[in-house]
Amino acid sequence: MSKRKVGVIGATGYTGIELIRLLFEHPDIRLDIITSRSQAGKKFSSLYPSFEGVFDDELQPVEAIKDVDLDLVFLALPHRVSMEFVRDYGLDRFRIIDLSGDFRLDSAESYKTWYKKDHVSAEFIDKAVYGLPELNRDLTRNADLVANPGCYPTTSILALAPLVKNNLIDPKSIIVDAKSGVTGAGSTPKNNTHFPNLFGNFYAYGLLEHRHTPEMEQVLGGLSDGGEVQVQFTPHLLPIDRGILATTYSKPIKDLNAELVRETFLSFYENEHFIRVVDQPPSVKNVRGSNFCDVYATWDPRTERVITIAALDNLVKGAAGQAIQNMNLMFRLIEKTGLDYPPLNP
Amino acid sequence: MSKRKVGVIGATGYTGIELIRLLFEHPDIRLDIITSRSQAGKKFSSLYPSFEGVFDDELQPVEAIKDVDLDLVFLALPHRVSMEFVRDYGLDRFRIIDLSGDFRLDSAESYKTWYKKDHVSAEFIDKAVYGLPELNRDLTRNADLVANPGCYPTTSILALAPLVKNNLIDPKSIIVDAKSGVTGAGSTPKNNTHFPNLFGNFYAYGLLEHRHTPEMEQVLGGLSDGGEVQVQFTPHLLPIDRGILATTYSKPIKDLNAELVRETFLSFYENEHFIRVVDQPPSVKNVRGSNFCDVYATWDPRTERVITIAALDNLVKGAAGQAIQNMNLMFRLIEKTGLDYPPLNP
Amino acid sequence: MSKRKVGVIGATGYTGIELIRLLFEHPDIRLDIITSRSQAGKKFSSLYPSFEGVFDDELQPVEAIKDVDLDLVFLALPHRVSMEFVRDYGLDRFRIIDLSGDFRLDSAESYKTWYKKDHVSAEFIDKAVYGLPELNRDLTRNADLVANPGCYPTTSILALAPLVKNNLIDPKSIIVDAKSGVTGAGSTPKNNTHFPNLFGNFYAYGLLEHRHTPEMEQVLGGLSDGGEVQVQFTPHLLPIDRGILATTYSKPIKDLNAELVRETFLSFYENEHFIRVVDQPPSVKNVRGSNFCDVYATWDPRTERVITIAALDNLVKGAAGQAIQNMNLMFRLIEKTGLDYPPLNP
Amino acid sequence: MSKRKVGVIGATGYTGIELIRLLFEHPDIRLDIITSRSQAGKKFSSLYPSFEGVFDDELQPVEAIKDVDLDLVFLALPHRVSMEFVRDYGLDRFRIIDLSGDFRLDSAESYKTWYKKDHVSAEFIDKAVYGLPELNRDLTRNADLVANPGCYPTTSILALAPLVKNNLIDPKSIIVDAKSGVTGAGSTPKNNTHFPNLFGNFYAYGLLEHRHTPEMEQVLGGLSDGGEVQVQFTPHLLPIDRGILATTYSKPIKDLNAELVRETFLSFYENEHFIRVVDQPPSVKNVRGSNFCDVYATWDPRTERVITIAALDNLVKGAAGQAIQNMNLMFRLIEKTGLDYPPLNP
Repeated sequence: MSKRKVGVIGATGYTGIELIRLLFEHPDIRLDIITSRSQAGKKFSSLYPSFEGVFDDELQPVEAIKDVDLDLVFLALPHRVSMEFVRDYGLDRFRIIDLSGDFRLDSAESYKTWYKKDHVSAEFIDKAVYGLPELNRDLTRNADLVANPGCYPTTSILALAPLVKNNLIDPKSIIVDAKSGVTGAGSTPKNNTHFPNLFGNFYAYGLLEHRHTPEMEQVLGGLSDGGEVQVQFTPHLLPIDRGILATTYSKPIKDLNAELVRETFLSFYENEHFIRVVDQPPSVKNVRGSNFCDVYATWDPRTERVITIAALDNLVKGAAGQAIQNMNLMFRLIEKTGLDYPPLNP
Repeated sequence: MSKRKVGVIGATGYTGIELIRLLFEHPDIRLDIITSRSQAGKKFSSLYPSFEGVFDDELQPVEAIKDVDLDLVFLALPHRVSMEFVRDYGLDRFRIIDLSGDFRLDSAESYKTWYKKDHVSAEFIDKAVYGLPELNRDLTRNADLVANPGCYPTTSILALAPLVKNNLIDPKSIIVDAKSGVTGAGSTPKNNTHFPNLFGNFYAYGLLEHRHTPEMEQVLGGLSDGGEVQVQFTPHLLPIDRGILATTYSKPIKDLNAELVRETFLSFYENEHFIRVVDQPPSVKNVRGSNFCDVYATWDPRTERVITIAALDNLVKGAAGQAIQNMNLMFRLIEKTGLDYPPLNP
Repeated sequence: MSKRKVGVIGATGYTGIELIRLLFEHPDIRLDIITSRSQAGKKFSSLYPSFEGVFDDELQPVEAIKDVDLDLVFLALPHRVSMEFVRDYGLDRFRIIDLSGDFRLDSAESYKTWYKKDHVSAEFIDKAVYGLPELNRDLTRNADLVANPGCYPTTSILALAPLVKNNLIDPKSIIVDAKSGVTGAGSTPKNNTHFPNLFGNFYAYGLLEHRHTPEMEQVLGGLSDGGEVQVQFTPHLLPIDRGILATTYSKPIKDLNAELVRETFLSFYENEHFIRVVDQPPSVKNVRGSNFCDVYATWDPRTERVITIAALDNLVKGAAGQAIQNMNLMFRLIEKTGLDYPPLNP
Repeated sequence: MSKRKVGVIGATGYTGIELIRLLFEHPDIRLDIITSRSQAGKKFSSLYPSFEGVFDDELQPVEAIKDVDLDLVFLALPHRVSMEFVRDYGLDRFRIIDLSGDFRLDSAESYKTWYKKDHVSAEFIDKAVYGLPELNRDLTRNADLVANPGCYPTTSILALAPLVKNNLIDPKSIIVDAKSGVTGAGSTPKNNTHFPNLFGNFYAYGLLEHRHTPEMEQVLGGLSDGGEVQVQFTPHLLPIDRGILATTYSKPIKDLNAELVRETFLSFYENEHFIRVVDQPPSVKNVRGSNFCDVYATWDPRTERVITIAALDNLVKGAAGQAIQNMNLMFRLIEKTGLDYPPLNP
């Protein structure tokens, strides 16, 4: 079988870099173009010397994709730049996996509510499939436009889906207390990502209004028979480079116990290679650099609450790795192709 | 006024070291003895070279306190060793501030339930005052035995007391998602505190059964008119040396709004030097090395939940600093004596 | 004795913040003005919440010092802005301690060679005293303009002065391999101080051309009978917030041995409170937050080389603490006033 | 071609874990046995959950290798345990790559001088090939016993070999100032690897007497025409998990310049896939998780010294990766098989 031809649009941010790292190890694709608005003309490895001798391709201006025959492009662009790309290039020449938030919400109204701006290519929203393979595998296979899930929503949804899908919990009782490494804040230096401001530090941010909230509610809501899902979501910034851990709390609507909760998760994720239902609280280092999401679920008989914890690498299962998992589905490849290796621990 | 004479029993653990660091800066006391079972005979600064030239006293065996005239001793001993000390030495010769968990719970039964062992000096439990000055200032002044609060309970109780005391929240709805630096785990090397196992890592531990849970419930329960308080407490280990941050969630039993919640906190802590009600989510680095506890409180109108966050230095306000604050009360000194300086940030 | 009146010009960078932290604890001064070009009008603690409730003064425009009676000002300004300040305000109204590099080199020519620009107030260079108290105590007492040493030169000079002053080593053989925490790079976010770029990382920078090189050579040269001193200086960036450690290598010009080397250091620093000649290789955490510099010196009989190591906190003994030590000298106060407390370890 | 059969003896230390991580990705081998003295009978992934679902083999007692047909075993054992294994099992049944220091020095006398104990299988020392492929490729191919180089020596030798081999520097002038991440200190918790003791810390250790010194001198000496090589070696402990960086200084014995130095390195490593001669000082994060060693070389015309810097991942090119590179040579496979992927950065 000839290799599939793919491109990475916006290759110089963290998700772009990680896509290239992972695509390099993929046996069935050919990375034919990488683009950057600001760095076009430069050798990728001159900007990111970790790639020297491994991947030395030159960055192109985005317009160069007009002259390249591609099966699929990854958009690793900032929010809003993605929607312009889709508007300008459409879905006829290549399929698209968009890693931004532009096509994750299912209506232009919801987008406007949370992002405070109008969507510029709302007509594509209905075409987009939310690419969380463990929930949406079949739709993804045939999609021309995949909205790759956010890092926090991936973690949180995987930590809650078995409960919601089985109608075990009150959909209004969900709390997600999440903690993310700093690569989640992007590659542009800012005050809050200045090393001395974060070293030895820890704090919450984005309370009440984080844009990943409606994404969680929408996807979990789609699983629920019991009506609207509401999520209390509080993100925190961890002084590490990569890794997300989400601790969730919810109240049952049925009689539960620890064994039942655990069985629900084991059964729900029985055939999922990338979801490991672990029997001790998971740690972000146990998934570092890999596409695994480790999930733990328990029941507190004293307080009658379900507690679940999920951990993943925000740049892999929370972004680039999941995008490649989606690509594998779209190309009808084995789903774990190019993603099947152990985490980097220690 | 002549200086008060104090001793530190068990000076070689983290809380002992921190007591010595802080007592050194205290103008009104004289540190007349420091003891250690395993290191007696050694110069303190030979074990902890950061103190060289600053504090070079020799460690004594604990029995040496029999020959020293003391007003007060700090017990920086492991759990259970403290209760044996109190049993053996009583409260006649000096007052005691115990930094272990041995006298925090108000009954021998509760102790046995959570610590799984019998208390060996249960007759002293009733004499112990729980030394959280912001709640218990008056009792502390006259106490002969002070149970210095745990680091997690101090953080959590300060984050919740204004809500519970004013009967604003359902006492069964409280969730505390807490994150602590590694000094909280003590100074003895273990697998889970081995540097490569924690660097770049983050995880939860002690779910459902952490011994600080009943401490929170008991103290908050004492503030509540509305019946028994139940706390869902989940601690996590942060890859930093010092600092605790607790994020709490609760459901109201009255009509609330953001302003009312914030005013409740401002009013409750109006005269408290060490409690800073901040208007942005607090960070652990903003209190590093100091006795401050920064508290933030808000209201989510969408989910109708109160969210509060408190941050402190687990070795200072969470242990040694609070002990000195208690000592100041017991000696009728100005409460912030020796504790009045800025945090170390950056 | 009435308190001395001081000001901090440029209070919002890391050395400015640290000056305020330390001045707050100083019993004999009054901090009457703090200025900032960009943040004038704001409350200092609104920018740096760690100071809230401790130091809430408002930042003034620099011109406001015209209306304030001051004994001394600290310039915590960027390079070149300091020299303009000295040119504009002179030394008649207040004495000045400049924490920039503008008055450290002893000629305008040397300045131009290493800084690649002309000096704008060269007439003040001769008036400036290089404020390393352990070498220059007497001159500093009477100085109207003190050039506060750089962080790397302080560390390196203290590690080498006993050897050079006693003519024990070949002045051309000196190598300084130094490692600094990230606060040394300033408070402005840049690519190389972006958290994910430094976390888990380590590298050298500024090889051959770092501007602290001539400062070391000039000061050590002033101690040497044996002619010009040449220093091979290589700085590295450590993924920590504060701390500098310098490892030096040199060849003897006399018969040496370990005991002689150590005795030379013990004797040279015999009366120095802030220099601790330690008997194990020093660590940056043993001096964190303090004005101590720990120095270790040994001799390798196999290779016939002297190896010395010095560690200090770049923001304290390497900047603000040393400035206050200089101020104490200028005000004829006890030299350790306001600086006499233990490091923060752990 | 059928897969080669290999085993890992001592699989539960850091080099053992890393061997398994890397062998998992190797297409041409079969990992038929992993052993552990203390953990035999346990599932490997129960001890190291990052491997769960990836590699779940059970640990065997070492004696179990008697019943397994193997082409090669890796010894990831402590020093001295390796030499006993070789004594007991010999080289007839399988070839051996030993990752300990037991067979690196070329005589039992040298071993005794630096390790302070007698060698127990000295008769195998002559059979051992020092497995630094870039220097010793041909001998390694045919070796039955390979002494896999130490992490510091690999870094230092690669940083110096082009200079020594070309007789450009005085072999007595070499200084290596090296800095290592904490995994280099092994997986057993100790006081000096306790997280709070290292976090935010940095210091030198093992001055004058580190056992990697004779290894460097012996191997570089073998390259030199100019007589005995002497290395001044000072290791430091970095507060990161993985990565070594060595900065070297030496004096020329010929007229040199920056271009000549750089050309010497480019030419020496021209065909070496894993050695990247970089044009900026290298960083440890640019090689994280990979088998690359980045080398930088420059010349200071002012001081007339050569400065070179090398960076690698101590667990990969400094241990397990290099062992696999050696295995590929011994099996006549393409040298980079299983090792050809980008570093993990960020």
